[in-house]
Amino acid sequence: MRKRSLTAALALTLAGGAAHADEGMWMPSQLPQLAAQLKAAGFQGDPAALADVTADPLAAVISLGGCTASFVSPQGLIVTNHHCAMGAIQLNSTPEKNLIKDGFNAATMADEVSAGPAARAWVTVGFTPITERILAGARGKTGRAYFDAVEAAKKAAVAECERDAGHRCSVADMYYGSEFYLIKQLELKDIRLVYAPPEAIGNYGDEIDNFMWPRHSGDFAFYRAYVGKDGKPAAYAPDNVPYVPPAVLPVSTAPVKAGDFAMVAGYPGVTFRLRTASEFATQVDWLLPARVEMLDGLIRTIEAATAGSDEKRVRYASTVASLKNNLKRAQGELDGLRRSDAVRVRRADEEAMLAWLARQPGNKPAQAGIRALQAQLDAQDATRARDFILPFLRPGLLGAAVQLQRLALERTKPDAQRESGYQQRDEALIEGGLKQLQKRFDPEVEKATLRYALKRYFALPAAQRVPEFDAVFGTSEAEAAQRLDALYAGTRLGDESVRLAALHQDAAQLAASDDTLLRAAATLQPALLRLEDQAKQRAGELLRLRPAYMRTLIAYRKTQGRAVYPDANSTLRVSYGKVSPLSPRDGIDYRPLTTVAGIVEKHTGQAPFDAPKPLRDAIAKGDFGSTADPELKTQTVDFMTNLDTTGGNSGSPVLDAQGRLIGLNFDSNWEAVSASWMYDPRYKRAIHVDMRYLRWILAKVYPAPRLLREMQLPAE
Amino acid sequence: MRKRSLTAALALTLAGGAAHADEGMWMPSQLPQLAAQLKAAGFQGDPAALADVTADPLAAVISLGGCTASFVSPQGLIVTNHHCAMGAIQLNSTPEKNLIKDGFNAATMADEVSAGPAARAWVTVGFTPITERILAGARGKTGRAYFDAVEAAKKAAVAECERDAGHRCSVADMYYGSEFYLIKQLELKDIRLVYAPPEAIGNYGDEIDNFMWPRHSGDFAFYRAYVGKDGKPAAYAPDNVPYVPPAVLPVSTAPVKAGDFAMVAGYPGVTFRLRTASEFATQVDWLLPARVEMLDGLIRTIEAATAGSDEKRVRYASTVASLKNNLKRAQGELDGLRRSDAVRVRRADEEAMLAWLARQPGNKPAQAGIRALQAQLDAQDATRARDFILPFLRPGLLGAAVQLQRLALERTKPDAQRESGYQQRDEALIEGGLKQLQKRFDPEVEKATLRYALKRYFALPAAQRVPEFDAVFGTSEAEAAQRLDALYAGTRLGDESVRLAALHQDAAQLAASDDTLLRAAATLQPALLRLEDQAKQRAGELLRLRPAYMRTLIAYRKTQGRAVYPDANSTLRVSYGKVSPLSPRDGIDYRPLTTVAGIVEKHTGQAPFDAPKPLRDAIAKGDFGSTADPELKTQTVDFMTNLDTTGGNSGSPVLDAQGRLIGLNFDSNWEAVSASWMYDPRYKRAIHVDMRYLRWILAKVYPAPRLLREMQLPAE
Repeated sequence: MRKRSLTAALALTLAGGAAHADEGMWMPSQLPQLAAQLKAAGFQGDPAALADVTADPLAAVISLGGCTASFVSPQGLIVTNHHCAMGAIQLNSTPEKNLIKDGFNAATMADEVSAGPAARAWVTVGFTPITERILAGARGKTGRAYFDAVEAAKKAAVAECERDAGHRCSVADMYYGSEFYLIKQLELKDIRLVYAPPEAIGNYGDEIDNFMWPRHSGDFAFYRAYVGKDGKPAAYAPDNVPYVPPAVLPVSTAPVKAGDFAMVAGYPGVTFRLRTASEFATQVDWLLPARVEMLDGLIRTIEAATAGSDEKRVRYASTVASLKNNLKRAQGELDGLRRSDAVRVRRADEEAMLAWLARQPGNKPAQAGIRALQAQLDAQDATRARDFILPFLRPGLLGAAVQLQRLALERTKPDAQRESGYQQRDEALIEGGLKQLQKRFDPEVEKATLRYALKRYFALPAAQRVPEFDAVFGTSEAEAAQRLDALYAGTRLGDESVRLAALHQDAAQLAASDDTLLRAAATLQPALLRLEDQAKQRAGELLRLRPAYMRTLIAYRKTQGRAVYPDANSTLRVSYGKVSPLSPRDGIDYRPLTTVAGIVEKHTGQAPFDAPKPLRDAIAKGDFGSTADPELKTQTVDFMTNLDTTGGNSGSPVLDAQGRLIGLNFDSNWEAVSASWMYDPRYKRAIHVDMRYLRWILAKVYPAPRLLREMQLPAE
Repeated sequence: MRKRSLTAALALTLAGGAAHADEGMWMPSQLPQLAAQLKAAGFQGDPAALADVTADPLAAVISLGGCTASFVSPQGLIVTNHHCAMGAIQLNSTPEKNLIKDGFNAATMADEVSAGPAARAWVTVGFTPITERILAGARGKTGRAYFDAVEAAKKAAVAECERDAGHRCSVADMYYGSEFYLIKQLELKDIRLVYAPPEAIGNYGDEIDNFMWPRHSGDFAFYRAYVGKDGKPAAYAPDNVPYVPPAVLPVSTAPVKAGDFAMVAGYPGVTFRLRTASEFATQVDWLLPARVEMLDGLIRTIEAATAGSDEKRVRYASTVASLKNNLKRAQGELDGLRRSDAVRVRRADEEAMLAWLARQPGNKPAQAGIRALQAQLDAQDATRARDFILPFLRPGLLGAAVQLQRLALERTKPDAQRESGYQQRDEALIEGGLKQLQKRFDPEVEKATLRYALKRYFALPAAQRVPEFDAVFGTSEAEAAQRLDALYAGTRLGDESVRLAALHQDAAQLAASDDTLLRAAATLQPALLRLEDQAKQRAGELLRLRPAYMRTLIAYRKTQGRAVYPDANSTLRVSYGKVSPLSPRDGIDYRPLTTVAGIVEKHTGQAPFDAPKPLRDAIAKGDFGSTADPELKTQTVDFMTNLDTTGGNSGSPVLDAQGRLIGLNFDSNWEAVSASWMYDPRYKRAIHVDMRYLRWILAKVYPAPRLLREMQLPAE
C-alpha cells in the first residue's frame, strides 16, 4: 500500500498539480515570480534582490569553469571545493613539499601561491536577452543552414562582447532554442591558493565514498583572486593586489538542522528534464540498457584478453576503470529512472499537455510544430543503433589513425574555421594523446574489443550499415577477424615515433602511406564526415523545432500554476529546499547530518580512510567550541539537502534563510544519479560540507586564524 | 564527545554496575531470580513458569540439532526456519517436482512427506544437576587424567540415561567445568515436511543478504512430528500418528512495533564471554589478526596458482569460497571487537574483580587457582603460533594420507575406544571425503599452499618447531620446495582408486607402502598424536582450573547485583529484550521492521532476488487483511530485536510479553559477529521473520488454510 500511494503522490507531483516545492534550477530572473513559494519555504530575504546576477548576493557566486565558488571577503577570498582546487594543489606540490598529502596554509598573503597560468575565475557582469538577434538570420532556414545561422550569430555576439578587454562572453540557449542570453563575465587570471586541508580530509573516502551517504569529507579549499594595481584582470604578477568583489557572502555561525531552509546558487552543467516523452523512453528503454550491455561486454572482453598477462592488464587498467565507472553511472541512472517510473510519468504528463493543447483555440501551428519535432526524433531513433555502435569501432590505435587523417584535413583550412578539437590550440593535446597511447594499447586486446563491437555492428539491419565500414571490416565476424589480423599486422603506428612523425605529415603524405591502419582510416573518413554533417543537420532541426514544444509546455504549466525552469546549461541557477534526511531503501534512514564519530569509524589508516593524526587527536580531545552542534553535542561534518543540483554545482554556496553561507555543495547521493532526467523528491539529495566543520578545521585542527578574522568569524 | 560518552557508558555497562538489561543467554532455571528485571522489561507472564524446561511454555521449544524449533499445534505441528528444513526439502525434490524452487504445501496430513531417516526432533524431558557425580572421580587428578575422569563419568551417566528407550542424553558443562547437568531428550524420529515457501521467499537474498539488514526473507517452514500408535518415538511408518507435544506456543495476532518486549528461547551453540582478559587479548591482538593474514594469503596463493587454468579454478572454487567466508567472519569479528574496545573493557573488568577478591577474607585458594589458570593460559600462548600453523601443513592429499594412516591405527582398537571421528560410523564420511577430493585437488596448487604455510612455519622460533615436520619438509623454503616436488612426484594417492584401496589396508600394509605421501604421513603421525595428547592434557587442566575463576566472577557479579549466565553450549537458553532499531554507523538508522516494499525494491528477476510472481502480484494488490501493520499501513516482513543470540538459535521462537509467538529468529546483523565474545548493546541485534508475514503468505500468497485453522489463526 505504501508503494502505491507514493507512486500516486509522485505522479501527481511530477505530472500535474503543483510542482514539488523543492524541484527547480531557477534562472535568477525567475525568482521574483516565485516570491510566495520562497517565503512559504522559509526564505527570509528579498526574492527581488536575487534577480540581478550582477548585484549582492549572487554577484558573489562565481564560476571556476566546471566548478562554482564564492567570495567570502572583500579582499577577494574565494571558497570552493578541495576537489575543484586539486589542479592548483598538485601544481604547487613537490616530492619535498607535498601539498596534496599535507595540505597548504599560507601564513600571510605573501605566502599565497599561484594556482597556475591557466587558472581562472569568472565574475558575471552582464546577462542580457538577445533572442531576436540570434534567431533573426535563422528564420526560414532549416537543418544545417539553421544550425549554421545560429552558430554564426552567436559567434558574432561573443566577438563583439569580448572586445571589452578582460572579459569572456558566451551565449546561453534556454529552453532549447527558445531564448538566448548574452553572458558577460569578468575574467580573473591571477588566482592563488590560500588554504587546503590534507587530501585525507578534503577527499576523505575518495572513490569508495563517491556518491555515497553518510559522507565525511572536508571538501573545501580557499583561493584568492588578484588583479593589477589598476583593478583590472591581469596575469599573475607578484605585485598584483587582491580583487575587490562586487559582493561577499557572510559565513553563518548558526547551527543547521533537519528541516531548515536552504538555497544553493551555482553553475549546473546539463540536465534533460524538458526532453519529450519519446526521448525519455529512448533513454530508459533503449539507450541506457544498450550502454550497460555494451560497457559490460567490453569490460569482460578486455579482462579476458588481458588475463594471464600482467603487462596487458596494466596497459588497460585505466581503460577498464573508466569503463566500470561509466557502467556504474549508466546502471545507476537506469535503476533510478525505473524506480521513479520516469517513462510512464513523463508520458502521462505529455499526454495531458497535448490534450490541453487540443482544447486551445489557434492551436494548429503548435500541434504541427510538435508533430514535426516528433517526426525528427523518430527519424533519429531509426538510426540509433548505428549511431550508438559506430564510436566503438574506432578505439585506440585505429582511433589515432582516424584522428591523424582528420587533423591533416582540418589543417588545410584557416584556423578559425577548423572543426572544434582540431584547431592549433588543440594540437598539443592530440600529441599528448598519441604519446600516452604507447602505455595504454595492445594490438591483441584492441582487436578483441573491435571483434566484440563488430559483432553488434554486423547485427544491424542492412539499411543502417555504412558502406565504408563494411569495406574496412567486411560483412561477417569471420571476415572481420581476418581483416583485423591483417590491419594490425600491417601497421607501424604501434611505434610511438611513427605516430608522432605522422602528426607532422600533410593530407597528401598520409593518403600516400601504405600503412594498413592509415589506409583504413582514409576509407572511413568520408563516412565519418558525412555522418557528422548529418548530426549537425539534425541538431539544426531540433533547434528549430523544439521551441514549439517548449512554448506549449510553458503555457500548460502556467495553467497548473507552475513556472518552468530551463534545463541546466552551465549558467547561474538557484535552487531552494531544505535540510533533509533520506530513506534510500525500505528499512533504512539516512540522517541529514554526519559527525566526526563517522571519521573515526571509517578510519583504517589506509587511504582513502587515513584521517590525519591532528584530526583524530582533535576529535578525541572533543574540543569543538562554537562550532559544536547544540543538539548532537558534537562536531558535524557534512549535511544533506533536497536541493536541485547536478554536475557543475561542485563548490556552490549553500545559504540559509538569511542568505548566510552554511555549506559548500560537493556531491549528490547515488540514488540521485537519474536526476539529470527526473527530479524524484523521494530520492534526490545534494551533499554539502558543513561550514561549521570548515570553521572547526580552521580553528582547531590546521589553524588559520587570519582567515577566520578575514571572514569575521570567531577564533574558536 | 558522542564517541567518548558512549564508550564510557559501555564500559560501565560491561565492566561494572548493572548488566545491560538485554544481555544474557539465561538458563531457564535462572529466570525466577530475574523476575524483577523481566517485569521491568515488560514481561507479563510468570517468570517462575519459565524455570521448568519440561513444562509449558519452554517444553514447546525443541532442538533439531543445530537449529531450534517449536510446537504450534497439539497435533505436533512444528515451525522452524526454511534453512533448517532445507535438507528435507532437497530430499523430496526431483527434477520434475522441485520443492526448493516451487515450495511445498501438503493439502492433507496424508500428503506430508518424510524429512528422511536421519531427521530428528528432540524434546527436553529432563534437566538434572549432576556436578558431584561428574567431578567425584576427577578430584585430586590433573591434566589428562582429570580430562579422562570427567569424560568417563559423562559417558557413564549418558549410557545409564539412554537405557530408557527412545531418549537421547547428554551432559552439559556450565561455567567451564563448574556445574554439570544431565539432559534427557525424547528423540522423535518420524519428522515430516508440511509446508515450505519457494526458496525465493524462504531464502530471499541468500548469501548477498546474509548477515545484512534490512532483510526480506520469509525464512520459515513447517514440520510435523509423528510417533507410533503407542505414542512412543518410532521410525517413519505410514500409519504413525501425530505426536502430542507437552506444550504449544500460541501464535500472536497482535502487531509488533519498536520498543515492544521480546523474548527468545533456543539452543545457542557457543560463546566465549566468560573467558579471561588474557584470552580476549590473545583473540583480538593475536589470533584473529593471524587468521586474517593467513586466510588472505592462502586465498591469494590459490588464486595465483589457479590463474590461467579454468580447470584448476573450478577445482578450488569451493575451497576459495569457504576461505573467503571464513576470512570475512574473522575480519568482522576483529573489527567488531576493536570497535567495542573489547580487550580494554574486559581487562578493566577483570582487574576490578581481582581487586575485589584481594579484599575478601579467605581469598588465598581462589587467588592461587586463578594464578594457576593464568599460568596454564600463558603456557598455551607460548606455543600458539605453532598450534595455529600446524593444521595448515596437512591440506588436501597430504591430509588424506595422514587420515588414512590414523584410521588404520584406530581400527586396531575396540570401536567404542576409537578416537571420535574414526569410529565405524564415521568411515562412510571418510570415504566420501576421499572421493570428493578427486574434484577438489591439484598437486601444483597444493604445493603452493604448503609453500605458503611452510614459510610461516620456518619463521617459528626453533623451540616451537616439531622434529617430525622438519624431517618431512626440511628446514628452509628452498629445501621445502625440493621436498614437496619429490613428495608429490612420488605419490599415487592422486588416483582415486589408490586412495580408496588404501582405505581398506591395515596399519602394517600402509606402513610398508613406498608411496611418498604415505611415508610422510607415517613420519608425521607420532608428532600429531603427541600434540593431541598435549591438547587433552591442557583441556584437562583448564577444566580443573577454570572453576576458581568462575566462582570468583559469580561472587563478584553478585556484589554488583548481577547474575551470570554460562557461556552458550547448545543447551536451552532464554534471552529477553526488545524490538530495536540500530544505528550501525554515523548517519545511518536501520528501522526495526521491514516491509514488502523492500522485496519489490530488491527484485531483479535473478536469484537470489527473484521474488515469485504470486508474491509480487499479492504485494501489488496490497490486500494484507488482518496481517497488515496498523501504523505502517502495509505488510511487514522481518523485524529486529536486541535479543542475545548466536549460531544454533536459528528457528528459535520469539515471544511477546504474553508469551505469544511473534517471530522466528534466523540471523544476526553483521555488526554483531563479534558478539560471541562480547555483547555490545550498541550493535548486537537479532533478525527475525515476522509471524504476520508468515500468516500473510499462508493466507494470501501460497494459501494453506488448514494450517491457519490448526494454529487457530484468522483465515486472512
